This record gives sequence, C-alpha cells and structure tokens, in this order.
Amino acid sequence: MKKSFGAKTLAFPNPEWCVGSYDIKDQPNLMTIAWGGICCSKPPAVTISLRKATYTYGNIMARRAYTINIPSVKFVKEADFVGMASGKREDKFEATGLTPVKSDLVDAPYVDEFPMILECKVIHTHEIGLHTQFIGEIIDVKVDQATLTDEGLPDMNKVRPFIYGNEIQTYHQIGNKIGDAFDIGKKLF
Amino acid sequence: MKKSFGAKTLAFPNPEWCVGSYDIKDQPNLMTIAWGGICCSKPPAVTISLRKATYTYGNIMARRAYTINIPSVKFVKEADFVGMASGKREDKFEATGLTPVKSDLVDAPYVDEFPMILECKVIHTHEIGLHTQFIGEIIDVKVDQATLTDEGLPDMNKVRPFIYGNEIQTYHQIGNKIGDAFDIGKKLF
Repeated sequence: MKKSFGAKTLAFPNPEWCVGSYDIKDQPNLMTIAWGGICCSKPPAVTISLRKATYTYGNIMARRAYTINIPSVKFVKEADFVGMASGKREDKFEATGLTPVKSDLVDAPYVDEFPMILECKVIHTHEIGLHTQFIGEIIDVKVDQATLTDEGLPDMNKVRPFIYGNEIQTYHQIGNKIGDAFDIGKKLF
Repeated sequence: MKKSFGAKTLAFPNPEWCVGSYDIKDQPNLMTIAWGGICCSKPPAVTISLRKATYTYGNIMARRAYTINIPSVKFVKEADFVGMASGKREDKFEATGLTPVKSDLVDAPYVDEFPMILECKVIHTHEIGLHTQFIGEIIDVKVDQATLTDEGLPDMNKVRPFIYGNEIQTYHQIGNKIGDAFDIGKKLF
C-alpha cells in the first residue's frame, strides 16, 4: 500500500555536490546543490539547477563556466556549511579553509581537497520555473590519485561521495557494493 | 595530486532508477537510467536523459508521460536486467515478474513492488546531443507505507535505494547517515 505525497520534489537518492564559480571581482565561490546529474554522453554533459536568487547563478551566467566538486564524507560539514552561507556576504573558501584552484580549462575554480572534480563549460540554459537549468559540457574530470584502484579507476570506497535525502534532510554515505552493472541482472533467471 | 580523465561522463554518485512508459500497443515498458535527477522545485520537476534509439524514447514522445520507479536493493537484479533488455523485443514486466500498475494521474505504468514512485507529465524536451532530456512535472510521489517513519516520512534505511557508479560499473547500497542537512555545517567552527 502506497501513500501519496502529492506534487513534491521527493526522490532518493540525490547527489551532494559543490559548484565552483568566479564572481565579478574574480573571487572564487562555492554553493551546494542536490539538483543535478549527468545528462548526455556525447557531448559529455552534466546539468545543475539553480535559483536565480543564488550568487552562483549570476556568476555562471557571466562566465559561462562552473566546476562540480564532489566532496568525500570527511567534508560533510564543509559541504553543509557551503549550502547555508551566501557568497554575497561571505568568502566560503576562507570560511571553510578549502583551497580554490584556478582551472586551466574553464573560467571557474575548483576545490583542491575534494577527490573528484568536473570542469564544465555552459552549452545551454533552460528556464524550468523557480530553477534555471545549466547544461555544462564536461571538459575534464580530475580525480585524486590516492582514490584510484590498481587499474587506475576511481574507487567508490576511497572517493567516498555521499548523498542527500531530500524531504528528510539527511546525508548518507555510500555503502557496500551490491553488484556489477550489466552482469548481476543475468542472475535473475 | 589529481589524474585527468578527460572529457568523460564520470561523476559519483548516479541514481539507479527505472522509467515506466506505455508503447503504441498499451504494453507497459521499463528502462533503467542513471542520467537523471530533480531539476526544479516549482513546478516540482525531474529530468531524465534518453537516447533516441531506446524504445522508451518513442513511448514518452507519444504519451508525454513517464514514471520514475526507485528500486530498493532487493531488486538490483531486476533493475540491472531492465537496463540490458529492450522493450522492442521483450515484455520486461513479464520477464522480471514485476507488476505494472496503471497510473490514475499520468499516461504511464508504475512498478507495484518498488518503494518510491514519481508520476510525471512531460513539460519540456531538450536536445543535448546523443541524449534527449525530458523534463517531467512531478504530479505525485507515492511511497510504500511500510517504508515510512513514525513521522510519516520515507526512511532511507527502509526505502533502500541504491546508486550506480558509472565508469566502474558497480551498484552500491546507501550506508549510514552521516549528518543532518542545514545543521551539521554549524559544527564546522
């Protein structure tokens, strides 16, 4: 038996990502988002949705670039703080002690301490309603060497991203592997 | 020190969701996606990206509706199978034993056994490249009563969604809570 929650933005799980941008004074800024995800394979692209009222919205409209900075669980406090403060009033890099690195590829800063970074150039913007959707072409993905497997791929247990449960407003770490994709389904029969 | 992976769709974590639709013969179909997420609060909306080659693409273009069906970990085999088979050749509900339920609200079926369902009407489509992005207004979210907390909200540990690690092609369950949103960040200082 199911309970109807009505027309709500309720879906599990949502990513917990920080978006890096420069403001008009070249000050690096960060904001935390959960409305985002990969949206195209060719060109490789990732979407984020922002309200016009955010400081980052103006930054990205002006620079046409952003980074996605994926925090590991040890940065849950920093990511949550970044989601509460505004770059209009506060230097969030200074407040959190995180280190901004100027991207060589796009006009946006990224977070040195976070294990996985996507550098993006805006290729489309879409007005949906309260939120504007930015579609960013992924120019490069950078991953901490220390989080790679022997095969050179990112290890989920070393990157240690976390998810946001909206409506219930809780963060959860990623747990154990439960199967290989394009494989475990063969064991259904 | 970071390693560059180049222009790739590499980002952790991605949701593992099944999309429900009807084909031209009113046959219910399911496909598995990882390119999706909430994209607007007002109207509440969720985006999914599909290749034109998929059977579901044609279904959604014709019906202008879809459901998002969030599997719990016990359905990892079914979800993976759904991601490998095509509705052009196979009835995936019959193959998996999952039960299609006709939505009263949108012209699409949902999966009875999955704990969290979003019923969506298409309000925009965007051509990004290989993938077309559908923006669906969320008309209702239905959640299994058995997965609710005493306060009537979905419990992450009872819904038990899972995530997809792309590039590494593995599924992972959601682990322990690591903090409350809009709260743990206050403990940074």
